[in-house]
Amino acid sequence: MIQYPTKRKPMKESAISTKNRGMSLEYDLNLTNEYYRAHQLANVHKKPTPIQVVSVSYPSRNKAKIVEAYYKTPSTTDYNGVTLGVYFDFEAKEVTDMNRFALPRIHDHQIQHLKDVMFHQGCAFLIIRFVKHDLTFFVPFEKFYHELSITSLRSIPLSWFQAECDIIPHGFTPPINYLPHVHQWIKEKHVK
Amino acid sequence: MIQYPTKRKPMKESAISTKNRGMSLEYDLNLTNEYYRAHQLANVHKKPTPIQVVSVSYPSRNKAKIVEAYYKTPSTTDYNGVTLGVYFDFEAKEVTDMNRFALPRIHDHQIQHLKDVMFHQGCAFLIIRFVKHDLTFFVPFEKFYHELSITSLRSIPLSWFQAECDIIPHGFTPPINYLPHVHQWIKEKHVK
Repeated sequence: MIQYPTKRKPMKESAISTKNRGMSLEYDLNLTNEYYRAHQLANVHKKPTPIQVVSVSYPSRNKAKIVEAYYKTPSTTDYNGVTLGVYFDFEAKEVTDMNRFALPRIHDHQIQHLKDVMFHQGCAFLIIRFVKHDLTFFVPFEKFYHELSITSLRSIPLSWFQAECDIIPHGFTPPINYLPHVHQWIKEKHVK
Repeated sequence: MIQYPTKRKPMKESAISTKNRGMSLEYDLNLTNEYYRAHQLANVHKKPTPIQVVSVSYPSRNKAKIVEAYYKTPSTTDYNGVTLGVYFDFEAKEVTDMNRFALPRIHDHQIQHLKDVMFHQGCAFLIIRFVKHDLTFFVPFEKFYHELSITSLRSIPLSWFQAECDIIPHGFTPPINYLPHVHQWIKEKHVK
């Protein structure tokens, strides 16, 4: 029996949507950091995920195979690097909620770590992407921490980010060009 | 039968030797970095070892058990951090050879990484301990790289470190007080 295409299958929204252009924030950031390194704009890396190795076997002389291990809770943020001699450090989060960033998404020791970076005059920030709106914000940690300390809510609304933070526009190379914001921060700090 | 202690067991050399006072360089550095963080002198961490996870099982709902994974070659150094706003980055190596540091001990991409850090005006260095002499050196990467580029040997002799680099004395808290050397570097850089 020949199946005539009587009903045209509707195109999936995702196929025509401009949302989620990047595969994921992490993917975009890896490309961006690679671009910065290749063009000598900054040296920045994602830290490896901390893993507790319990047992290793040696199937051949020079090969170590880990056969039992567990993920550990990270005590720091995922990314840090250097540009113009200045240390910068950030955590990146994708938000699938429509209109709010849930605070438990950031671990207490990551908050503590970013506070420490701020204390030592490093540039501390967050990169937060609201996936459903395809909006990526550069969030200076100082502002974020201030909001954290005055809010009674367990989340920060999208409207706060829109009012207080810069949007990092999507690009091709690099996908998430956050470095100009770091340079701006350095400039402002040295003017003070 | 009672075993009379006719023969006194000689004390092991290691028990009375002052050599290898620290358990290991890595252990000493972990304590040192902890001390710096606790006393808010610097924020510095050892990066997790990079591991390629191949297979994960879920023996219970919330527990992920890694059952196949392999060590990856690190693309950066082991340690980085911030003090006075300045980025610093180093690799630590224990040398068991009596009188020389074998150059293959440092990976090419670690050399490249430290060169990059130097380019971006961060403070790049090595901490090298000659275990048998119980000598720990603070080795500015600039000097090390210069030596690397002019030597025809596959190692750098102890005498070079003694002539060119500062010794970091053993301490109690912290065990390896390298931070004053970083501060000195920052001071000299800003005088230039």
